[in-house]
Amino acid sequence: MKMHYSTLLGLFILLSALSGCNAGKDLVVPADGSHWINMKVLIVALHSKGHNITVVRGSRSWYIEEQSPLYTSITVDTGKHDDDFIVNFLPRLLQIQRQGRSFWNEMALAEEFYSRFREIQQQICNMTATMFENEILMNSLKDATHDIVLMDPAFGAGVLLAHRLGLPLVFNVRWTMYGEAHFDIAPSPVSYIPVTGLQLTDKMTLSQRVMNVLTYILTLYKHSKYYGSPYQEFSQKYFGPNVDFFSLLQNADIWLMRNDFTFEFPRPTMPNVVYMGGFQCKPAKPLPDELENFVQSSGEHGVIIMSLGTVFGQLLSEINDEIAAVFAQLPQKVIWRHTGPKPANLGNNTLIVDWLPQNDLLGHPQTKLFVAHGGTNGVQEAIYHGVPIVGLPLAFDQPDNLSRMQAKGTAKIVDITTLDSTVFLEALMEVLHNPSYKENMQRLSKLHHDQPMKPLDRAVFWIEFVMRNRGAPHLRAQSFRMSWIEYHSIDVIMTLLATLLIFAFVTAYIMRYFCMVLFRKKVKCE
Amino acid sequence: MKMHYSTLLGLFILLSALSGCNAGKDLVVPADGSHWINMKVLIVALHSKGHNITVVRGSRSWYIEEQSPLYTSITVDTGKHDDDFIVNFLPRLLQIQRQGRSFWNEMALAEEFYSRFREIQQQICNMTATMFENEILMNSLKDATHDIVLMDPAFGAGVLLAHRLGLPLVFNVRWTMYGEAHFDIAPSPVSYIPVTGLQLTDKMTLSQRVMNVLTYILTLYKHSKYYGSPYQEFSQKYFGPNVDFFSLLQNADIWLMRNDFTFEFPRPTMPNVVYMGGFQCKPAKPLPDELENFVQSSGEHGVIIMSLGTVFGQLLSEINDEIAAVFAQLPQKVIWRHTGPKPANLGNNTLIVDWLPQNDLLGHPQTKLFVAHGGTNGVQEAIYHGVPIVGLPLAFDQPDNLSRMQAKGTAKIVDITTLDSTVFLEALMEVLHNPSYKENMQRLSKLHHDQPMKPLDRAVFWIEFVMRNRGAPHLRAQSFRMSWIEYHSIDVIMTLLATLLIFAFVTAYIMRYFCMVLFRKKVKCE
Repeated sequence: MKMHYSTLLGLFILLSALSGCNAGKDLVVPADGSHWINMKVLIVALHSKGHNITVVRGSRSWYIEEQSPLYTSITVDTGKHDDDFIVNFLPRLLQIQRQGRSFWNEMALAEEFYSRFREIQQQICNMTATMFENEILMNSLKDATHDIVLMDPAFGAGVLLAHRLGLPLVFNVRWTMYGEAHFDIAPSPVSYIPVTGLQLTDKMTLSQRVMNVLTYILTLYKHSKYYGSPYQEFSQKYFGPNVDFFSLLQNADIWLMRNDFTFEFPRPTMPNVVYMGGFQCKPAKPLPDELENFVQSSGEHGVIIMSLGTVFGQLLSEINDEIAAVFAQLPQKVIWRHTGPKPANLGNNTLIVDWLPQNDLLGHPQTKLFVAHGGTNGVQEAIYHGVPIVGLPLAFDQPDNLSRMQAKGTAKIVDITTLDSTVFLEALMEVLHNPSYKENMQRLSKLHHDQPMKPLDRAVFWIEFVMRNRGAPHLRAQSFRMSWIEYHSIDVIMTLLATLLIFAFVTAYIMRYFCMVLFRKKVKCE
Repeated sequence: MKMHYSTLLGLFILLSALSGCNAGKDLVVPADGSHWINMKVLIVALHSKGHNITVVRGSRSWYIEEQSPLYTSITVDTGKHDDDFIVNFLPRLLQIQRQGRSFWNEMALAEEFYSRFREIQQQICNMTATMFENEILMNSLKDATHDIVLMDPAFGAGVLLAHRLGLPLVFNVRWTMYGEAHFDIAPSPVSYIPVTGLQLTDKMTLSQRVMNVLTYILTLYKHSKYYGSPYQEFSQKYFGPNVDFFSLLQNADIWLMRNDFTFEFPRPTMPNVVYMGGFQCKPAKPLPDELENFVQSSGEHGVIIMSLGTVFGQLLSEINDEIAAVFAQLPQKVIWRHTGPKPANLGNNTLIVDWLPQNDLLGHPQTKLFVAHGGTNGVQEAIYHGVPIVGLPLAFDQPDNLSRMQAKGTAKIVDITTLDSTVFLEALMEVLHNPSYKENMQRLSKLHHDQPMKPLDRAVFWIEFVMRNRGAPHLRAQSFRMSWIEYHSIDVIMTLLATLLIFAFVTAYIMRYFCMVLFRKKVKCE
């Protein structure tokens, strides 16, 4: 692996260090795909406040532009690897699920997924090693005296870089490489906090809680086997045998969490967790004329928006055909973001587009329903604009995101593995015609908007807070310094038990002694 | 017990209900003493926003005025009881401690304190029963359609009243009748969260953690024996056998917490906890001329402020004499809030006053040091104005408040039980002349001021949020619905253990069966 960042770039970093920009200098280590869309929202906001931003990107990045008026980029060669893994993975998952779920099938697929996920994390470590071993780059980064590292901890490069450079760390986060981010820093009683993947709610029956606890234990096992291990090895190699990667991660100053409690179930949190759910949402802008005319033509019936997110534009064709046929029966107009072969049975009321202004469409008063895969961004936009959802979750966090919405009465989930026209039509009719879905979503929307500060402003405030104060240690609990045994007071319990045992033994010994003395006396007396 | 609120008052409540005031109607159930000072800050803020406020007060209240331009009051006869218990208790505690601490002495005193505390809680229950059984009052309260109950949960009357009236509940809180408020709603790992009373920090040795765990267990025992039981009996009598008072308390919509993490050690929290520490502090106003002249006369040496809070204006005279003699040796000027006999050895540099504008004095640039007992309000004001502390903690939360400040390097604690002139002088000299105390306190002050919103504005926002939205259930974790066994997954663990046992027995039985079959076959074959 080699590095191709220009000497000019290093010079630029040096020059901007010397210019001593007051607004702050951010070293941003983003994740790719939909995560980058989120990070870019923060970058735009920071740039508008005059920040001087440097973005670290991989050479084979999907979305992160090398050239941008917003930032300077450092491109690190990520070598050759199968970028299309995630893109190819989903249709295979779907195929297997459609052919009838088998426990062993799914386990094998999950095992493959985790192994590949571990490989990706290993590649990130290799990329970081390439950076660490390039002295010119590391020196220029040191000389650039950034104020913070702002990063997405789906991958760990930024954590390692911040530790190496001795910089405060701010997370733009919902998931770390270990899973849902709260589980990494806040106490998470699994009696009412559902573990990701089970689509449970915060009100569980005993059998659901048993399932939840077992899955949680499995997660802890995966922790050690898959997720953290490349970073742990890296940390020990570069920082010494006593440095624990998980502690470095927990040590982040501020966790800007990409959700809030209109989305998430209420749960314990920490003082350095700042909720910025919906930070990417804005009031709707007017639509392009053509689209506006199409929307207006829907009349009293309104419009249905369908989009399955950034990565999964196309699904299995048989499902698409079913969906198209159902849409054709409706009096509503439909705008469907779809790439790939045009579905059969497409009705005149359905407009296929390969991109849509989702935020503006969801904010349009004619929009009645959002057919969505349940990615975080889409769900947040639906909450922001108060549009109920028919959910077609595919993978990752999507089933759990949508189960939250279903529990709050704002969405109806359709299992894509059993989807047929009857089931899909029923779901659409229910959410369109049972007013509770819209009412509940509009209530959530009202709660989401009823905040003392806009989520994006809050995020920017805390990023700049960390810059001003060189961190936020007064908000960071001491738990990150403690071993698992100390944190859970296992050593205290063992000490107390040992004391009790010693006490019991000594008492028994003394009693035995007195008995013997008494016995001897008796013998003597006799 | 009888009630003496006027019919006119009932009429007023009815009329204001009919007038349909938009700004909100608050039913306030405060606690007395220094707690009332805090509540009044909120009342002033709400009144300035046009709220219509009704305050429930006991007939023998120390501080809560019956007549006020800010609110209408409902006075409930609290009967005859020893109001002076707390006032008398402290000098006795101090006397015993000065005569040499004895474990049994202190245990006896603590036991007496808890019993008396329980009696006070019982009196509050009796007062609440008097209200509940007065149909005219309860009907007028119902008809008044208040939007919320705002209360201090040091006592439980407001919780009961809110449940009876079906109103959302907002706490102005740092302590509930059970102890430090976080312990009632947020997970509190006792491995790094010090239990009140031990003056420990969030970095504990093994032996400190053992002490902390043992004290925590003792606290749980006190919970059931003393604190909640009058309310639990009351709840079951008036609301039915299945109503648990602790759940009603945990069920409060918003907990406006009278501290923040410049004061408290960082620890887990909950979505409905809003930190408003320092909400009572304001920039200093100019001092009265006489006081300003005295302060200015201190020149380069500056001024020391001493105040031991609302309730404990006077101490044992021998301690006062020691303190006065030490002050007399200093080049600084001293302003000492002191009621009672004038201390001997008073220097010319020491001004004794029976009241002082504490906030304005702490905010004066000439002020170098605050000699304080460590009440929450005083500590918050010292943080707000960045003035280091020499602490003389007396009782309650004071030792723990000051141990937090000492751990942050902003205060030096002097044990009042061993106070003599040498020790006190040393402490003063250290905090006056070692610049780290001032620097650390000014750093804390900077962090405290670096917030996106003023604490008082935040408090008012969330009170009005609860009014607008008829509660805040989306911020309230499901834990309050769960039994202790469910919350800690004890039932899940038992289920898993039972399953394992059954599995083991069945396996053993089957193996035994096969062994027998094999054995028989062998027998037959032979």
